[in-house]
Parts: sequence; C-alpha cells; structure tokens
Amino acid sequence: MEHIMNPLVGVIMGSISDFETMKNTIYVLEDFGIPYEKRVISAHRTPNLLFEYASIAEERGLEILICAAGGAAHLPGMTASKTNLPVLGVPICSTVFQGMDSFFSISQMPKGVPVGTLAIGSAGAYNAALLAIKMLANKYSNFKEKLNQLREQQIKEVENMNNQINT
Amino acid sequence: MEHIMNPLVGVIMGSISDFETMKNTIYVLEDFGIPYEKRVISAHRTPNLLFEYASIAEERGLEILICAAGGAAHLPGMTASKTNLPVLGVPICSTVFQGMDSFFSISQMPKGVPVGTLAIGSAGAYNAALLAIKMLANKYSNFKEKLNQLREQQIKEVENMNNQINT
Amino acid sequence: MEHIMNPLVGVIMGSISDFETMKNTIYVLEDFGIPYEKRVISAHRTPNLLFEYASIAEERGLEILICAAGGAAHLPGMTASKTNLPVLGVPICSTVFQGMDSFFSISQMPKGVPVGTLAIGSAGAYNAALLAIKMLANKYSNFKEKLNQLREQQIKEVENMNNQINT
Amino acid sequence: MEHIMNPLVGVIMGSISDFETMKNTIYVLEDFGIPYEKRVISAHRTPNLLFEYASIAEERGLEILICAAGGAAHLPGMTASKTNLPVLGVPICSTVFQGMDSFFSISQMPKGVPVGTLAIGSAGAYNAALLAIKMLANKYSNFKEKLNQLREQQIKEVENMNNQINT
Amino acid sequence: MEHIMNPLVGVIMGSISDFETMKNTIYVLEDFGIPYEKRVISAHRTPNLLFEYASIAEERGLEILICAAGGAAHLPGMTASKTNLPVLGVPICSTVFQGMDSFFSISQMPKGVPVGTLAIGSAGAYNAALLAIKMLANKYSNFKEKLNQLREQQIKEVENMNNQINT
Amino acid sequence: MEHIMNPLVGVIMGSISDFETMKNTIYVLEDFGIPYEKRVISAHRTPNLLFEYASIAEERGLEILICAAGGAAHLPGMTASKTNLPVLGVPICSTVFQGMDSFFSISQMPKGVPVGTLAIGSAGAYNAALLAIKMLANKYSNFKEKLNQLREQQIKEVENMNNQINT
Amino acid sequence: MEHIMNPLVGVIMGSISDFETMKNTIYVLEDFGIPYEKRVISAHRTPNLLFEYASIAEERGLEILICAAGGAAHLPGMTASKTNLPVLGVPICSTVFQGMDSFFSISQMPKGVPVGTLAIGSAGAYNAALLAIKMLANKYSNFKEKLNQLREQQIKEVENMNNQINT
Amino acid sequence: MEHIMNPLVGVIMGSISDFETMKNTIYVLEDFGIPYEKRVISAHRTPNLLFEYASIAEERGLEILICAAGGAAHLPGMTASKTNLPVLGVPICSTVFQGMDSFFSISQMPKGVPVGTLAIGSAGAYNAALLAIKMLANKYSNFKEKLNQLREQQIKEVENMNNQINT
Repeated sequence: MEHIMNPLVGVIMGSISDFETMKNTIYVLEDFGIPYEKRVISAHRTPNLLFEYASIAEERGLEILICAAGGAAHLPGMTASKTNLPVLGVPICSTVFQGMDSFFSISQMPKGVPVGTLAIGSAGAYNAALLAIKMLANKYSNFKEKLNQLREQQIKEVENMNNQINT
Repeated sequence: MEHIMNPLVGVIMGSISDFETMKNTIYVLEDFGIPYEKRVISAHRTPNLLFEYASIAEERGLEILICAAGGAAHLPGMTASKTNLPVLGVPICSTVFQGMDSFFSISQMPKGVPVGTLAIGSAGAYNAALLAIKMLANKYSNFKEKLNQLREQQIKEVENMNNQINT
Repeated sequence: MEHIMNPLVGVIMGSISDFETMKNTIYVLEDFGIPYEKRVISAHRTPNLLFEYASIAEERGLEILICAAGGAAHLPGMTASKTNLPVLGVPICSTVFQGMDSFFSISQMPKGVPVGTLAIGSAGAYNAALLAIKMLANKYSNFKEKLNQLREQQIKEVENMNNQINT
Repeated sequence: MEHIMNPLVGVIMGSISDFETMKNTIYVLEDFGIPYEKRVISAHRTPNLLFEYASIAEERGLEILICAAGGAAHLPGMTASKTNLPVLGVPICSTVFQGMDSFFSISQMPKGVPVGTLAIGSAGAYNAALLAIKMLANKYSNFKEKLNQLREQQIKEVENMNNQINT
Repeated sequence: MEHIMNPLVGVIMGSISDFETMKNTIYVLEDFGIPYEKRVISAHRTPNLLFEYASIAEERGLEILICAAGGAAHLPGMTASKTNLPVLGVPICSTVFQGMDSFFSISQMPKGVPVGTLAIGSAGAYNAALLAIKMLANKYSNFKEKLNQLREQQIKEVENMNNQINT
Repeated sequence: MEHIMNPLVGVIMGSISDFETMKNTIYVLEDFGIPYEKRVISAHRTPNLLFEYASIAEERGLEILICAAGGAAHLPGMTASKTNLPVLGVPICSTVFQGMDSFFSISQMPKGVPVGTLAIGSAGAYNAALLAIKMLANKYSNFKEKLNQLREQQIKEVENMNNQINT
Repeated sequence: MEHIMNPLVGVIMGSISDFETMKNTIYVLEDFGIPYEKRVISAHRTPNLLFEYASIAEERGLEILICAAGGAAHLPGMTASKTNLPVLGVPICSTVFQGMDSFFSISQMPKGVPVGTLAIGSAGAYNAALLAIKMLANKYSNFKEKLNQLREQQIKEVENMNNQINT
Repeated sequence: MEHIMNPLVGVIMGSISDFETMKNTIYVLEDFGIPYEKRVISAHRTPNLLFEYASIAEERGLEILICAAGGAAHLPGMTASKTNLPVLGVPICSTVFQGMDSFFSISQMPKGVPVGTLAIGSAGAYNAALLAIKMLANKYSNFKEKLNQLREQQIKEVENMNNQINT
C-alpha cells in the first residue's frame, strides 16, 4: 500500500528491533487501506536525518507521524519539536524496565510540544494506528464505515470468547 | 468561544476539582479560536450520562474529545469505548501517587480502544489542546499559521531566558 | 453447579485469556457449592453489554460480582458504577507491569463507588471467591461449616510442610 | 449509633492517628444507620488483643470487619487469619511511601486468607463503609433504598459541578 | 546439627516453597556449627501456632529468630510482636513484584516492634544467618575465629576471580 | 550515658543533618541505660576515618554498630565490610526519593556482608536501638526486664488511644 | 569568569527555572576558576539552536558539556548525538515524579551515544562540575591541587559536624 | 592491548559475573586502541584492596576509572571517595530489581563525590568506554578521528536497517 498513493501516515522507529512491535501498526494501517511509509530513523545516531524527515513531513503531505522508541526514547519528542503534524508515541517494552523508562520519556513532554502516548508494546502499536485513523476519519469520512465494522467485530469476538468458556 | 460556532472539541473532566488543571486546555483552545464545549461528567458517578455524551458526540459535530481524570481514571478509556472520535487523556496529579495511577489507567488501554495520553497535570492539559489543534489543522488549514506563530514565540521565550541568565 | 440454582455470584472477566487465572475463582465456588455464572464481558469492547449485565444483575438475584481485568482494567470499576451489589476486583498479572497498572486502576476508585481489590493473579482469584463466600455466609449460614473445614485443612497443610522439611 | 443495636460492623485501626482518615468510614456508617463499633487495636503492640477481638467477632454478632493500617500494615491480614467474617482493608497514606507499602502489605495476601483492599486514604475509608453496606444489603434489604438515594445524589452533584463550570 | 544441642537460632518460613531460598540460611548455620531448628509456620494459616512458637521461643533458649516470607509477608513482624528476641526478616522473591511487596511489609515496621531486614532472596537468606552469627559472637566468642576465616576466604575468592579474567 | 562506661553501641551517621532522625536512636539507648557513642563519619568524604573506626570497633569493646545514611547510603555496607560486629542500617528519608534509594542501597548487600535494615526515617531509628538492645539482652540479661516494661507500656498506650476515640 | 578566557565547559539548561539548581554547577566552576559559558537552550522549543550549539561546541574550544533538564529531559541525549565532546546530564527534580522521569530519560541512552548521569537536583548539579573538573585535571594538571584542597576541606567539615554532635 | 602501554583506563567490577556485561566496555576500549587494565575488586569483600587500588591509581598513570557493580553497588562511589580521577559507574542488571537498586546506589552520590552513571547493563558498559574515550580525546586528539568514524558507521547501520524494512 505504501508507494501507490501519497502516504498520509509516517511510521518511524528507532531501530529495526522495534519492527517486531510495530508490525501491529502496519497491520492496522494496511487493513484500513491507509497509505503510509515506514522508516528506521534514530534520534541519537541519525539526528540530522530525523530533523530533515520531520521538518519536511508536512509539505510532503503526511498528516500524522507515529514514532516508536525504547530506552531513553527521544524519537517521538524530538520529532514533535520539528513539525506541526500530530505525533503519536509508542513505548517499546525493553528488557530492563519493561518500557517504563520509555513511557516516561515519551509522555512527560513540556508545555508546548505534545506527544500522544499509547500503551507500551504491541497493544500500543496497534492502537497508535487506530488512533491515527480516528483522527484521519474526521477529514476522510470513508474510514468511518470501517471503524464501525471493527467495533462490530470486537463485539463478536467477545461473544465468541463468552461462548467458549460456557460450553 | 463556546456556543457561537458548533464545538469541534469536547473537554470532559471527572470532577470540578480537575478544572484547575484543565484551565490550561481551555486557555489554548480559546487562544487558537477553536470552538469547544466543557463538561463535568464522571465515569463512575454518572456512567449513563457519559455513555450518552460519548455516543452522540460524533453526530453532534465534535471531532476530538479531551478527557481528564485522576485516581482510577476510567473516563478517557470508557469514552473511547463509545465513540469513533479520537480521545486524548490527561492524567490529573492526585495527592496519593502523583498521578502515576491515572497515568497507567489512561494509557494502558487494550488493543482496539486507543487513548492518546499526555503528560500528567497542567503541561499535559496544555498539550492536549495543542495536539488536538495539530490534528484539526490537517483539515482546517487556517490553524496552521497560528501553530507557526506559537513555535516562533517559544523560540523567543527561550532566547529571553538565555539573555536573562547572561546579564 | 451453574444454572441448577439461581446464581448468587457472577464472575466476569475482560478476556478469555483471563480464564487461566480465574479458574481459581471457579474452583473455590464449586468446592463450596455456590451457584454462580461466568461471563466474558469487555468494558472497552462491549460497554453496552457490561452496562446491561451490571444494571440487571441485582434483580436477576445475583448477590456478588467478581470482576477480573488486566492492563487499564476498567471492568471492575465500571461494573460497580452500575449496580448496588458489592464488586470484588482481581488484577490480572500482565506481561508489562506485572499487574501493577491493573492493581492501581482497580483499587484507586473515587469516593462513592467502591471495589474491593484482591491480590494480583491466581492468589487473588482464589481469594475473591473466598471473600465472596465469607460475605454470603452471613446470610446463608450453611457455608460457615465449610469455612471452618477449610481453616482446619490449611493448618494441616502447614503441619505437613513442616514435617516435610524436618524429616 | 454505637451500642444501641448490636453492632454489625467493627471498625479497627492500628493507631489513633488513623482516625482522621477513618472518620470517613464512621460518617458513612452513621449516615446509613448501620450499628457499628470502633476500636484502636495494634497488630504489633497488642497482638493478643487483636487475636481475641478477631476470634470472637463472629459470635458477638459482627458481620463485617473494616481494618485500617499504615506502614507494614499487618492489621487487616492478621484479623482475616482469625475469623470467618469478611475483612476489608484501608491503607493509610503514610509520610514515607504515600501508602504504597501498606497497599502492598494489605492486598498481597496469600491463597486462603482474603482481604478486600480499598483505595489509599480517605476515599478508601469512605468506600470501605459503602462496600460493607452493599454486602449487608443482600441480607438487610432495607439498606437498598438508601443506596439508590446515594446514587441519585451523586448524579446531582456531578450535574451541579457541570453547571458551575458552565456559568 | 539441629537436635544435638539446644537450638540458638530458630528459622521460620511461611511455606515450604520458601525452603529453596532458606537453604542458604541453613547452609551457613551448619557451616558455623550453630545449633538451630527450622519450622514452617504460616502467619495467616496458622496464627495460633505462630503466637505459641514466638511467645515461648525465649524460654526455650532460642536467642535469634530468622523469618522468611513472601507476598504480604506478615510472618517476621508478627513474630517480633510476640517475643523479646531479635527478629531478622528475609523477603522471598515472589513472581509478581519480585519481592518488593515483602520487602516493604517486612521492613516498614512501626516504632517499638523492630525487624532487621535482609536483602531479597538467597543473598538475604545467606546473610540473615551471618548477621545472626555476628550477634551471637558477642556472647559466644568461639564463633569469632570462623568469621575471620570467612573474611579471608572471601578475599581469596575475589583474587581468584581477578586472576581468572586476567589470564 | 556516653563515656561513663565503655560504649557497647556505636551510632554513626553520614552527616549532621541525619541527627534529627537519629535522636530517636539515642533516646532509646539512653532510656535503657545502654552505654553508647555517636559519630559523624562520612563513607564518601572521610573513607579513611570510616575504615579506621570500623576496623577497631570490635577491639574497643563495641558490640553493635548502627549506621544511618541517606542518598547513595554506602555507610552501613562499608562499615559491615570492615568489622565482624553486627551492623544495623537506618535509611534516612531524603527529599528526592523519600529514602527509597537509601533503602535499596543499604539492604541489597551481597552474600557475605550482611546489614540488618530498619524502616526509613524516625521509626527505623527508634527500632534500630531497640533491635540492638534485643541482641544485647541475650548476653546482658538485665535489659530483659525493661523490654517487658516497654511491651506493657505499648499495650497501655493502645488502650488509651482506644478509650480516647470511644469517649 | 566567563568570556575572559575561552570557555572549557558549556552549561546548558532547558529552562530558566532550572537555573536555581544549576547555580551549584556554576558555583563550583567559578570556585575552581574554570572558564565556562551558560546557556538556556530547549531541546523541544529550540531544536535548531541546540543542534547548532552542539555541533560547533568542539571547534569553539569547549571540552565538556553539562546539560540539565527536567520532565522528558531530552536535552543531554540530543546534545550527545551531535558532538564528540563528553556530555554530563543533571536530572532536575520536577514536581510530578521527583525527577525519576528525567533520571530514566537521561541515563538510559542507547549503545553508541553516552551521557554520564549525575544525581537528581542540586547535589547532581554540584557534582557535574566536579566530575568535569576531574576530567579536565588529566589535561590541565593545575586543577589537581585544588581538588586535593577540596578533599581536605570535606574532611574538616565532617570533623566539625562530629564535634558539634558531641559537645 | 593491556600491558603494552601504561594503562589509561582502569575497568573494575565487583564480581566475575559482571564480566559478561563488561565485555562491552573492553570491546570498545580495544577497538579504539586505548591501553587499559581490568580488575575484579569487591567493595564489600576486599575493601582494603579497593582503597589501595583507588588511592594509587592516579600516580600509576590511570586517567579514568570505570566501575561496574550490581545490588547495593557501592564500588563506584567508594572508588570515587579515594581518588581525584573521574569515575564512571555501570549498574549491572541484577535478577531482583533489574538493576534499579544499583542504579540508585551508583548515581545518588552526595555533593562532593561525583560518579557519572551510565545506562543499566550492556548498553551502559559499552557507553562507559565511549564516554571515557570522549574525555581522553580532549587530551589525546588522535582518538577524535575514530570517534568520527564510529559516528559515520552508526549512520550507515541505521540506513541499512531502514533499507531492510523497506525491501
């Protein structure tokens, strides 16, 4: 889905090891048919690349940036410092503090430079895409239908689980 | 700015005591001229009211909901469970765990029902409005200009602070 | 034991994955011969179902609700918001914060909407049933005998363990 | 309300300094007209007194015990070890860990000896009484009416707060 | 070494599952030739047994009690409440909070009822015995020699490790 | 009481600011008539002094060392590394982490070098003295009487508190 | 001391509110006669300024950068990403998490981009300067003398405190 | 590389089990051709050895000391108390608190005795060497070239990762 249309969502991660988590973001974006692009950009190892990417993202037509990072996790915040686009952050569950350090580092942004933080790990990755789609649906109303379908599907899944434990 | 135009942003808080924090949200929305409405709705004391509010928010023309809550802080998550609109959550800094409990409760949402969590307390309240505006600016491009001005103003402020400690 | 008599205890869990933990609740209820029912109901994915279940639980003759949830864990609190029945909450030990997030989210309820929180994981699941039975035993005194037996059995178990390490 | 009728609820606290918090429990019990008694009993300084109190509480006609303690907070758990009555625990917000230590100590009870833990501090104290009343209401249905009134009153309060921030 | 001489040290643990950790305590006591006894006694499941054991420990000739417990971990504190003997506590590393809950519960004792807390898990178990021996050595000076030997041995071990990484 | 008899207990603190807390230790030692000495010795600023003090403490006739420290709190552990005497540690409640950092630093000692850790702050300071006295009472049985009196006094205090809230 | 000689140490802080803490850094640098400069530069509000400052710091003759930041605290890490100079980080003690969030964010840097983290708050600010001086002293041996004097002075201070509590 | 030139960096660890982590330090030092030495020295088991090593390190020509320790982790701080050389600390990721205890113990040093703390575990070990090299490069400018190369290499690695997820 990437290069066919101009991407609306940019998915950035600090390392290829984050991709295992961020596959969940990609899955949802593809499921909804959202044009997107994905990049490995490190705030600490490739700061210039990050600044360049973030500063031209808006004029390239991107509308939302989803940033995943573990450890000190400066990627989402530094991206937000260089763009007017809304930035969502996904804390990666690291081995040491189970993502708590990234959680703090991503969410505790100062007045004036917001990042919307999702849950740690794969649930957060999945939800980052979904929150992005909810944002986009205000402008691209064709996504609304599919959001309703997902809601129906979630109800079905719970009903199935309920049946399963009661038979 | 309320009521003149159809509100685009709904600001909900679980108690009037959260208003001290959420004044920062209101301040930013008014500063940008975003039509909004504000409500005290408690997830636990007025669950029906919350469900009604959340389920008709979209058809009433609201585009983003900002929810603030302290303690167990179920308000943002339960709002998200009843609407396709994007929901942003602001953890209130409570007396016991300094907002850590609300922080977890708001952000650790399960796959399928996202909430974008901001920093705890007044910085988060301020940033929730700003993140909402960044979202809206994709659709209502007239807000872009003011976002750039804010950015310029922030640079000025830092320069002033720098001058202040060096004179 | 389900369905033969009118259930006194409703056991609700947010996902089928919680059942591994909540088997401990079921085990105790069956051991004491308490009529019960079990349901998968998600606060976030099936909010209407939860509200319906909770709001008619009392008139259906249920006397206690035991709710298990992980992550943001809004299930126990939202159930409590819709019923006069006592609600007990079991935090599920999740992979990220070992249940700490659920622990906070379940117990830190605001004034007016109580949830009695048990220990995280299987011990809490086992004890939720036992606490429910202690409550019921005030009204249904026939459960008292079995509570005493359990107490005797626990003493025996400790004596056996003591013998084991001293032989 | 004490002493007129046989007390149904025993409120125990580890020190007189906990009374500031536990006044909230007393307030609710009196408001509902629940006969109760209150005691200062320390698990560590008066262990024999605690054991005696807990072991005859049931035959004295008490139906629920509410225990408050700070720091190591062994009072609720040790009470539960000596009675078949349901025990609710209220962690007192201490100066050092803001009640986190008591929170763990009260809730992390082993399989077989349950304590239902409420929120830390005054909200937990208030809710302990309310949860006790919800339990009692299954047997003494006359308390149900007042529970419904409280619910109505809570809705009113939220509506008032909403009016207040919108005028 | 247990029953030959009158035991000086009593090693108590809340469950047989703690024995894996407490083997380290036993190992040191046997290595130093300290007469000891070991018991499984549960504060919550066998409170009477604990009270009886603790209240006659002194007159039975015991001089130090080492108590191990996990979870809510009331064993060391309740033992201390019933004896004038010094009590040392070993937090067991549980699955949920890695012993943090036991750590708080054992160490945060109120003014007047002390417990000397050691490190969590096997290091703490080993050190509890060693601290007990250091206490006993003030009275039984024959243990001093062996304490010096252990110190020499520790130096040797470090030297060996140093040689190992440098060859 | 210092200097008249040969001191049995050495009370060391890392800074004079810890004295406010450690007055509680002194109070108990004086109340029991235990000969003691008190010193300000800093592990980091006066390491040689610490090593000298600790290495000759035993031959000077001291039998127990009580060490208080805040922040990184290396004083108790380094003292223990230089003496066969039992060492008790009191974490000082610092402004930043409320003594949590000191708590970890004092208690998490490696296999072979034990420190018995007390509660954070003034309760721990009081209890360090009391635990020291319980140790000494095995050798100096004249302290036993006073320990029993303290126990009686504690019971009285609780009874008084109980009377106070019931009148 | 600024501007007279070419500055060797650059002290950067994210906001003027950090100056209260960072005065301790300045104090030590001036006391040792280290030429320095101080700047308010915000990673989030003035990212370009930060990048420019950091990327030319080395060629301007600076040898060490000391960065202070609170909250998400990206300043030290992002500075390190743009220079070969050693970077030291001082977590500012914020109101919400007492600097814990900054602590994690500054220290948990990924492989390849180091920041040396000091203690939270004023002690860390003081020590950052001292650690910088210890580094510089390897090259500028004239600072060694004063380091020894400081050491002597610290010993004196402890001796004075000791005298104070013993008179 | 060790014994050919006079070592500039001393790498000390508290136990041979820390070597698995500290191999990362060695790797970087060797890669840059920095003369170094490595030692197992335990603050608690070999305090005299530590004091001797630290007090003559400077006159032996060492310029930086890197200290690794787990648990109570007094090694870096006590080393710093005995030398004017800059000391860097690496918290080892222990089994119990995932290195959090070491993290606090190493970084929360008092005013006057600084330790520069790196990230927990292998990333911190790697970065300790790199930070040491950045310090040395101010004096030994021949290391600057290689620092630039490493920076280029890091950019390459990120580019490669980016290509990998986009093909």
